[in-house]
Amino acid sequence: MLRRVLSTLCLASFSLSGLPVLAEPLPLLGFSPTSAAQERTLEGQYDAQLDRSHLRDWMQRLSAKPHHIGSPGDKENAEYIAAQFRSWGYETEIERFDVLFPTPKTRVLQLNGSRKYRARLAEPPLKEDSTSAVPGQLPIYNAYSIDGDVTAPLVYVNYGIPKDYEVLAAHGIDVKGKIVIARYGGSWRGIKPKVAYEHGAIGCIIYSDPKDDGFGQGEIYPKGPWRNPYGAQRGSVADMPVHAGDPLTPGIGSVPGAKRLDMKDATTLTKIPVLPISYADALPLLQALEGPIAPPEWRGALPLTYRLGASAASVHLKLAFNWQQTPVYDVIAKLPGKERPDEWVIRGNHHDAWVFGASDPLSGAVALMEEARAVSTLTKTGWKPKRTIVYALWSGEEPGLLGSTEWVETHAQLLQQKAALYINSDSNTRGFLDIGGSHSLEKFANQAATDVTDPETGLNVLARTRAREIVKGSSEERREARERPDLRIDALGSGSDFTPFLQHLGIASLNLGFGGEGVGGSYHSTYDSFDNYVRFLDPKFEYGITLAQTAGRLTLRAANADVLPFEFTDFADTLQKYVDEVTKLAKTLREETAEKNRQISEKLLVAVADPTQTFVTPQTETPVPAFDFAPLEQALARLKTSAKRYDATKATALSPQQQLALDGLLSQIERKMTQEAGLPRRPWFKHQIYAPGFYTGYGVKTLPAVREAIEQRQWTEVQTQIPIVASTLDQVSTQIDKATALLGIP
Amino acid sequence: MLRRVLSTLCLASFSLSGLPVLAEPLPLLGFSPTSAAQERTLEGQYDAQLDRSHLRDWMQRLSAKPHHIGSPGDKENAEYIAAQFRSWGYETEIERFDVLFPTPKTRVLQLNGSRKYRARLAEPPLKEDSTSAVPGQLPIYNAYSIDGDVTAPLVYVNYGIPKDYEVLAAHGIDVKGKIVIARYGGSWRGIKPKVAYEHGAIGCIIYSDPKDDGFGQGEIYPKGPWRNPYGAQRGSVADMPVHAGDPLTPGIGSVPGAKRLDMKDATTLTKIPVLPISYADALPLLQALEGPIAPPEWRGALPLTYRLGASAASVHLKLAFNWQQTPVYDVIAKLPGKERPDEWVIRGNHHDAWVFGASDPLSGAVALMEEARAVSTLTKTGWKPKRTIVYALWSGEEPGLLGSTEWVETHAQLLQQKAALYINSDSNTRGFLDIGGSHSLEKFANQAATDVTDPETGLNVLARTRAREIVKGSSEERREARERPDLRIDALGSGSDFTPFLQHLGIASLNLGFGGEGVGGSYHSTYDSFDNYVRFLDPKFEYGITLAQTAGRLTLRAANADVLPFEFTDFADTLQKYVDEVTKLAKTLREETAEKNRQISEKLLVAVADPTQTFVTPQTETPVPAFDFAPLEQALARLKTSAKRYDATKATALSPQQQLALDGLLSQIERKMTQEAGLPRRPWFKHQIYAPGFYTGYGVKTLPAVREAIEQRQWTEVQTQIPIVASTLDQVSTQIDKATALLGIP
Repeated sequence: MLRRVLSTLCLASFSLSGLPVLAEPLPLLGFSPTSAAQERTLEGQYDAQLDRSHLRDWMQRLSAKPHHIGSPGDKENAEYIAAQFRSWGYETEIERFDVLFPTPKTRVLQLNGSRKYRARLAEPPLKEDSTSAVPGQLPIYNAYSIDGDVTAPLVYVNYGIPKDYEVLAAHGIDVKGKIVIARYGGSWRGIKPKVAYEHGAIGCIIYSDPKDDGFGQGEIYPKGPWRNPYGAQRGSVADMPVHAGDPLTPGIGSVPGAKRLDMKDATTLTKIPVLPISYADALPLLQALEGPIAPPEWRGALPLTYRLGASAASVHLKLAFNWQQTPVYDVIAKLPGKERPDEWVIRGNHHDAWVFGASDPLSGAVALMEEARAVSTLTKTGWKPKRTIVYALWSGEEPGLLGSTEWVETHAQLLQQKAALYINSDSNTRGFLDIGGSHSLEKFANQAATDVTDPETGLNVLARTRAREIVKGSSEERREARERPDLRIDALGSGSDFTPFLQHLGIASLNLGFGGEGVGGSYHSTYDSFDNYVRFLDPKFEYGITLAQTAGRLTLRAANADVLPFEFTDFADTLQKYVDEVTKLAKTLREETAEKNRQISEKLLVAVADPTQTFVTPQTETPVPAFDFAPLEQALARLKTSAKRYDATKATALSPQQQLALDGLLSQIERKMTQEAGLPRRPWFKHQIYAPGFYTGYGVKTLPAVREAIEQRQWTEVQTQIPIVASTLDQVSTQIDKATALLGIP
Repeated sequence: MLRRVLSTLCLASFSLSGLPVLAEPLPLLGFSPTSAAQERTLEGQYDAQLDRSHLRDWMQRLSAKPHHIGSPGDKENAEYIAAQFRSWGYETEIERFDVLFPTPKTRVLQLNGSRKYRARLAEPPLKEDSTSAVPGQLPIYNAYSIDGDVTAPLVYVNYGIPKDYEVLAAHGIDVKGKIVIARYGGSWRGIKPKVAYEHGAIGCIIYSDPKDDGFGQGEIYPKGPWRNPYGAQRGSVADMPVHAGDPLTPGIGSVPGAKRLDMKDATTLTKIPVLPISYADALPLLQALEGPIAPPEWRGALPLTYRLGASAASVHLKLAFNWQQTPVYDVIAKLPGKERPDEWVIRGNHHDAWVFGASDPLSGAVALMEEARAVSTLTKTGWKPKRTIVYALWSGEEPGLLGSTEWVETHAQLLQQKAALYINSDSNTRGFLDIGGSHSLEKFANQAATDVTDPETGLNVLARTRAREIVKGSSEERREARERPDLRIDALGSGSDFTPFLQHLGIASLNLGFGGEGVGGSYHSTYDSFDNYVRFLDPKFEYGITLAQTAGRLTLRAANADVLPFEFTDFADTLQKYVDEVTKLAKTLREETAEKNRQISEKLLVAVADPTQTFVTPQTETPVPAFDFAPLEQALARLKTSAKRYDATKATALSPQQQLALDGLLSQIERKMTQEAGLPRRPWFKHQIYAPGFYTGYGVKTLPAVREAIEQRQWTEVQTQIPIVASTLDQVSTQIDKATALLGIP
């Protein structure tokens, strides 16, 4: 019979009977003192197994050839990884899905006029980089750009996000019928062609400005780690905020016989052709721009006067792709649980890359492999996890979370029953722990991070991240980092394989990795290579080991805990923050709109404009009405009470059956945060608390239905969505109350 | 017998007898309704005289040759201007002072090592610029740099202000024995070598980064107005915040027989050699830097990775100057007052330039000349000003306010008796009215600006500046700009000829000009030419006329008013703002120091540092004690009462003798803001409310003795200076009370 310990903070706590219990020096959420002690012993054995030479060897091997989806390297890597897992004793299989994946057939970008230029669109081999000349590399392109052949003047749109078009409009610049050139940054890349199309553009070029990603940041490759003049960023431009995965099978697995959409009905393909280029190729294009001088914050580091355009000379962009069904190979490896085999702790990282992918994704993937290998050695002594551990090495992450999404969609029913939580990682380098995910796992994440030592400072990795919050944060962030017992984890938007788990199915998830120090500009380039990684990023693989220690603890604890390690007071506290934010957002937008309308009506904007420059006064906007946030506040108040009651509940003797039943209730709580109808205009995204922003991409929007309705000035929708979100929170409270009730508290 | 009207705002006000007086639709501060009406008629006649073709002709003529001090062109221009004034009927003389003025004999800047480079240090002639090849130009140099011959590694110090050296120290970079290279901006240029020397540097190079002043801002000259790769900024680097004027005669006029310091005793010469260079010359030097990568905000627009240094290769800087006594020729032209000839309204602008100086200073000087010409035509109809108008065209402003300072120092006693106020202008271009000065003249300035029409928008020029505050300001600035009846004028630091009047003698002053639209990068360069000005800055001289209208109104009103147009409620309100600022500064610094010390003691800074980079933890600082600001608050409370009583006093019949006596009291009020002992460590600066910052130069520090003691962490001095400033405010209150008493109010 076991005691549940839910608090790390009270060293002396009181049992329900009123009798004091002794101090428990090292409690673990979900573990009794006895099982916590066993767990810590196990983790010591686990740590002792970790060997960084494996990380180095695997990275070198797996990054030796191009291994994008559809390449021989991808299949070979999947088979190699699967063989490793089998050799460690995992029940391993490769699951194949066939997905739409375009590769380039024609890529032409040319500047016409008197100073003709044809873009090179290639990353030259470097003698300092041993893989850079290896054949079979995917050319520079953006996946899921449509085919197109357009010729038009060029306009510079900065990051190409909605507010940039307001600046252009004020300068009297219209992109209708034009090709836009946007720089990388400011949003996920797929947002740029979407917004360009919404404003009437017929083509989109995306380049890496050296201010953000090149010599403006540091020495360029191969002298330093930063992007050189010909380096370019590949990447998907599918409309991922609408749905992840294969564009032809939204919501269902891309298995043989699955009903596939016609390409013309696929909603996530771009509407205009899109091409990424290097800054060497961007220079002549930007030099051809005329028109107004770009605002200071739009200016990059190229040696020219940045202008908005349009160009007098036209630009010719011609793109055609092979639109093929392409296999993705997920490696799925299981270690069955001894007591609760039908509760799955899933731990994933993708293995596919755009080219060689030493950093993205192999730095994370090899840490996961070493974690799995070390875990497997523990079984040699007779230990087995209580719950089933599932290691997943996804393919097709790069083009659009394909491998993970198709697997999740294929096994949705099974996962809704069995998945306890999902733990994701991706690229990893030196520096600070970044961890985000479900806030019901915040205390769990904090505990694990507290138990791992940072190799550079000797602090625990949580303390180092907390130090960064204190040193770099705003005064409010500093205060919180000093005073709040748990460090608040980030909310997740998108950009890696947690999305289908968390936001489509409602499986509690975490995403973690280290970074901030070993930084550079090889992202999605040929030069993301082993040579680059071991020179500049994490040469000794120390942080690869640190990731294995941190993620390994999360995996082992989730698999071994007496009851699943959820906690809800932190969660409710963060919800309060989000509710405060959307309330304040409405207020701020109301004041700003009123002020802006007043300035327009008083003709102040035209009064301060230089009449020798074009200035177009914006239209006044509809005033922001008052919204009734009371349903949200009420639901939040209830949630806080429910959370507090569950978390305060201690010292109840639970039978194994009760533990199982409690796990069942707990693992469904994140499911209760979803609505089957999904978010407005994007039903695939069902989570009501976290979503990738419709106009930010990777960037998260919390309470997205309400927040985005405010941001997008959909006043009726704001009022419609508030009760839906409130009722979602009520569902969560009800489920928490059920868990509390099972503990014997009415 | 006249009624004083001190408020523009109350259209119906109450006499002291309690009887209502009728609405006065267009009151003018210092004028009775009758005399206000006469004044407005006169101003209408004045406006009708203004002819922009004169501005163009004079600018073209006066900018045809180099006219720096000591040049034939300077003397010729002075004589031409004097002849004009004489022809208009002014009592005109040229006053000569002989001052120390160095010109270059040797200028060598060379990069040693494998990539040798010898700086060109020259601005090439351009076929698009008709004066650029005219001989006799001063080379590129910084006046009052000492001679020197130094060879040392180079370090990049950003703007070279004190906080930049904190950043260098954190990176483990020491400038001792090094040559520093700083970019222009962030402070007045003379601060850079001063701070470099304080940190042990042995030489200082200052360059114009194209981000701040070059292609990063707009098209370069001659295609556009911005600084081209070889354009460089000349300028004085004397330690002007210690004293203005001839370095050898602080506090006294440089007249024949004046006691001159030995050069070795001159405190304002630099301690290390200093040279300004173009960005073409800076590029190879910056490329030679090694060491840590510069922080993002330190990076300019040159196509390189900015590094802190030091360079492996050394730099050789060799400078020698002709240290000559050089004549400056001030043109002083008087129009004697009819009723109060011993009250002087002084209106000045300099006429000397670094090279051709079309913009700086001729754009302002020709507006002043047209103002004087138009005023002279008014006398043809029999009008004479009540008070004496003195027009002054200073020479030697560029090297250090030489002409104005020596004149002020020479005539100090006379000016202390006679000067009612000083009105200054300098460069002028298209855009917005910028006006600053004594806040006792704020309402006066507001009234004049309300009566002048902006040529681009048709608004009055005050309304346009107010619109800018509303549109571009912070929410607090916006609120104030909307709600405060008078637009708050700026406080004056330094950078033009008002400094000796205001800050040395305590003569109430205003400084005004238009700008913000016709902007470019020809400042102190060969390319500040007529061709440049008429292409890019104010091609139609519309804003030259607008300046003449605004400054002309100020001059005429000050000369014609029944009583001098001072007002003190606005002044006291601004004093409250300054007292609040220094109080808050102490509080903020106390909190920041405590937080910083805590972070150091908790070892958080080293915890977040990348151990592969050098990081030196700063020393803890002494805590900021609590200061007793009560004397300041008490003096301020008294001042507010005195101001309110004076400003509320109306409708007193004053005899001419009483008006004269009242003028005498009023013109002494600004004098009461000074202390004979001056500011700590700089006795020449006597004003206790406004001073150029010791570490900012042109940038103002208000309540400087207290504010800079806080900033420089001189805790004892803070407490010593507070009562001194408070007693200064008490002097002011006493003087205001005397004026009120004269009006018959006890």
